[in-house]
Amino acid sequence: MSVHRAGRVFLIGAGPGDPKLVTLRACEVLREADVIFVDALVSPSLLAFAREGAEIVDVGKRAGHCGPSQQEINQRLVERALRGQTVARLKGGDPFIFGRGAEEAEACVAAGVEWEVVPGVTSGIAATAYAGIPLLHRGHASSVAFLTGHPGRGFRAGLPNADTLVIFMCGGTIIEIARELLSRGRPGQMPVALISSGTCTNQEVRIGTLADLARLEEVSAPAPTLAVIGDVVALARKLHWFGGEPMALAESASRSLESCRATQPA
Amino acid sequence: MSVHRAGRVFLIGAGPGDPKLVTLRACEVLREADVIFVDALVSPSLLAFAREGAEIVDVGKRAGHCGPSQQEINQRLVERALRGQTVARLKGGDPFIFGRGAEEAEACVAAGVEWEVVPGVTSGIAATAYAGIPLLHRGHASSVAFLTGHPGRGFRAGLPNADTLVIFMCGGTIIEIARELLSRGRPGQMPVALISSGTCTNQEVRIGTLADLARLEEVSAPAPTLAVIGDVVALARKLHWFGGEPMALAESASRSLESCRATQPA
Repeated sequence: MSVHRAGRVFLIGAGPGDPKLVTLRACEVLREADVIFVDALVSPSLLAFAREGAEIVDVGKRAGHCGPSQQEINQRLVERALRGQTVARLKGGDPFIFGRGAEEAEACVAAGVEWEVVPGVTSGIAATAYAGIPLLHRGHASSVAFLTGHPGRGFRAGLPNADTLVIFMCGGTIIEIARELLSRGRPGQMPVALISSGTCTNQEVRIGTLADLARLEEVSAPAPTLAVIGDVVALARKLHWFGGEPMALAESASRSLESCRATQPA
Repeated sequence: MSVHRAGRVFLIGAGPGDPKLVTLRACEVLREADVIFVDALVSPSLLAFAREGAEIVDVGKRAGHCGPSQQEINQRLVERALRGQTVARLKGGDPFIFGRGAEEAEACVAAGVEWEVVPGVTSGIAATAYAGIPLLHRGHASSVAFLTGHPGRGFRAGLPNADTLVIFMCGGTIIEIARELLSRGRPGQMPVALISSGTCTNQEVRIGTLADLARLEEVSAPAPTLAVIGDVVALARKLHWFGGEPMALAESASRSLESCRATQPA
């Protein structure tokens, strides 16, 4: 006689890139999973936590390769759980910070599937910390906002006015955002950082000013890239500790745009 | 002949409360530390990772007990590292999100002491996720801001206008913040959550509207408390998965203020 075993979906934050920034809870769930659905920006070394025989499914979106739609991913998670499987959905950064985790959770609820979230270290906080940029600092910044530079997500409608801005999925729109901020009165000397492959061994940090950024025609920092705008960026000159010295933003001005298209894990 | 061994300070995020939300890197550093300086809101179970003989120093601020000043803590970290010790500074949440980690890093740099940061899962993201509130959601919120409700940090000067607001160290000032937001045109029906002891087994979530909150004379959610304001809060009714059903904010209106004074780990 078979006993029905209820499946469950775990929405797991894989952290920002450095595989040691994954949580104990994430490792625990990965060890129990029957199937693991993985995004493009997740460190492959995390799959070492999977049990022998676990099925690994790549659902990542990469340049020139669309991957399955969000709706398709939602359906596949739900189907597996309804079959009684323990389903791990491993997402870069944190599942609810620009990770579409909320939509996957809603799909589970709609289908009557049990689910949990395992929060992760967001690259918004970790990539900046590895670059020596504290997002908040008594005297320099008492608020920080996270937003997306993804085209079509309508940043014009509501550019937040927090002291520090962290912009995810920062492609060419970061130049438009810089121009918009200048037109709203942010000073041209306000420091700006572009962080590529944050927390990874190939991390690169470029520092300049809002005026520098607005003058560019193309951004050439290698993807995935995160931008930080605010007075706290200036602290990186003193507080950088991981990887090499920050570079000047303007040095990169003449290179190609192609490399700044993909996203930093959330 | 003794060889000089350079000390080092590690600023470590302990995560939001659930001890399983600590990172592998944090555990690794805790195992190597000669001395661990601990904040009040760090889960005591994390100290199980310390090696035998490691010295544990409590520098936490608690109600009715001030603890050492920030400058004193900075000095003690630096002194120990200059003696050649591996120093772990274990802070609730993330060290750079309202954690004064930046000041400790600056003290290290000024003293010529090597340091690193181990980012943590911030309670701003994790306590909300455990309450079933995704801070961002296509269609509901495309930006989120973190700020402090700590009196004297001047929230009036710059209340950010992000779609979702997360307010740390939320004591009685949350009522003032609600009134200020109403006066700036946020709708009275905008949903609000107060999360107490987020991600811990005694987590409590209270949900109401901005108008409910502004009408209160005292906030009585048990400390430590985090507030969330924005349309995404409404999703908690559907997406809550950890702990019990959310309570109504108004139920708690008549209790004492005393309990909402301490802070949620950053």
